[in-house]
Amino acid sequence: MFRHVVLLQWTEDATEEQRAEVARRLSGLPDAIPEVRSYRIGHDAGVNEDNYSFAVVAEFDSPEDYVVYRDHPAHLAVIEECIAPILADRAAVQYVL
Amino acid sequence: MFRHVVLLQWTEDATEEQRAEVARRLSGLPDAIPEVRSYRIGHDAGVNEDNYSFAVVAEFDSPEDYVVYRDHPAHLAVIEECIAPILADRAAVQYVL
Repeated sequence: MFRHVVLLQWTEDATEEQRAEVARRLSGLPDAIPEVRSYRIGHDAGVNEDNYSFAVVAEFDSPEDYVVYRDHPAHLAVIEECIAPILADRAAVQYVL
Repeated sequence: MFRHVVLLQWTEDATEEQRAEVARRLSGLPDAIPEVRSYRIGHDAGVNEDNYSFAVVAEFDSPEDYVVYRDHPAHLAVIEECIAPILADRAAVQYVL
């Protein structure tokens, strides 16, 4: 398996509605992109200070299938319409499981 | 389940030996800390530019069990001895699965 991990930091003025909309829209991607094998997202629980805001952990059969997800129009639409407007910082790693 | 995700960026002068030592030492933590339910680490696969260097995705029964891991002497020793000397940046999120 091939795992994609991305952590997103929202801007300080990001509203609860905007944060919830990111989660709602991302949750629809596994149905739109059949290459996705596992998709677990979530808002930071607030246990530690200085954390990022949101996590996406997605699994694929191969790096090629991850790239299909990365470049899929449904994914790019969520990034452009929901994520980019409230994105302050981003960190990502892909690794072999 | 409660998932802890951390992405680490190494300094440019971090050696292959230092990077491998982080993975080797972290791999021993599940045996040392019984609260760890799942522990999957890995070096970035190099599919994308501007990625971080290394990922840790760990799962626990509860936030309290995660805190046991976070503050465990065996974990703190790996951070102090292997991670801190080559750490350029860090991003983390904990979230409910």
